[in-house]
Amino acid sequence: MTYEVEMKFPVADMGVLESRLAAMGATIDGPRQEVDVYFAHPARDFSRTDEAIRIRRKGQANFITYKGPKIDAATKTRREIDLPLPPGEEAAQAWTGLLEALGFTVAGEVRKTRRKAHVEWQGRRVEASLDEVDRLGSFAELELVVEPAELDAARTCVMSLAAALGLDHGERRSYLELLHPQ
Amino acid sequence: MTYEVEMKFPVADMGVLESRLAAMGATIDGPRQEVDVYFAHPARDFSRTDEAIRIRRKGQANFITYKGPKIDAATKTRREIDLPLPPGEEAAQAWTGLLEALGFTVAGEVRKTRRKAHVEWQGRRVEASLDEVDRLGSFAELELVVEPAELDAARTCVMSLAAALGLDHGERRSYLELLHPQ
Repeated sequence: MTYEVEMKFPVADMGVLESRLAAMGATIDGPRQEVDVYFAHPARDFSRTDEAIRIRRKGQANFITYKGPKIDAATKTRREIDLPLPPGEEAAQAWTGLLEALGFTVAGEVRKTRRKAHVEWQGRRVEASLDEVDRLGSFAELELVVEPAELDAARTCVMSLAAALGLDHGERRSYLELLHPQ
Repeated sequence: MTYEVEMKFPVADMGVLESRLAAMGATIDGPRQEVDVYFAHPARDFSRTDEAIRIRRKGQANFITYKGPKIDAATKTRREIDLPLPPGEEAAQAWTGLLEALGFTVAGEVRKTRRKAHVEWQGRRVEASLDEVDRLGSFAELELVVEPAELDAARTCVMSLAAALGLDHGERRSYLELLHPQ
């Protein structure tokens, strides 16, 4: 079972952040459009249980992702199950149909342009995502995916990198929650 | 949206059935082991709603299948969503983990050896499955997958083929229901 250790921050000036990442030796990938469709569970109120299930379209690639409840107060650390689906629009629709047949309903959609970078920090390779989120603005996410035994070290690493990049006012709410406040 | 039109029959003498299929020009494939794991829904009692969700392992190949309620009294006609998963034991376990995280629980397992044949009948290609089901015995299934507009013609076709093959005492219960009577 793997966990994602993640922190998210609003970004006032993306150019400054890009410069700091470049100074750390990170290469920033080109932009990719991501469309996430989130689903409500047939029996659980995910806004209370702090879980999520979504289908992500990234170009032609599709993924299904479950996120468990956040397990600490400072970061967005949580269990994550991220599985590839067959590619293409038709497959994404078929999978949406399967979830709907099981009683899941579409809860909302998040569209963003994401640029990824990877930073070597404290002996780990941290994934940084520079996001321009439709109707929300600019954000940066820092993420490690680790086994439970590494959770504390991963949190320390991500928080230390955030400080070095000048990121603060960590945002624990998801983009979906920011777009659709309860 | 596609439906499966299916009839299932107990088979007293598989050799006789094989001869009749051969006389119709059908070729019977070699045996394949299939392991189906069925799941209970977190909020719906599938034994009441007459639905099913399962993960099938067929050699290294994996599939996830949803079956809707049966919509007539004579056959097992029902909506079906059948989607491929990535192959291998690890993928099957990851998908089981995803369903369990969403509150689905394992309801039972059906293991069988299946030999498939295809029969041209009334202008359609009917799939026949010759099954040796662990702890249940020998069965034959006849199946067409069709769009809603073709449902009546498909039912007529399958029932006619069953009669021509000498199959009777149609069994509408699933193997899971036969193994785990409510």
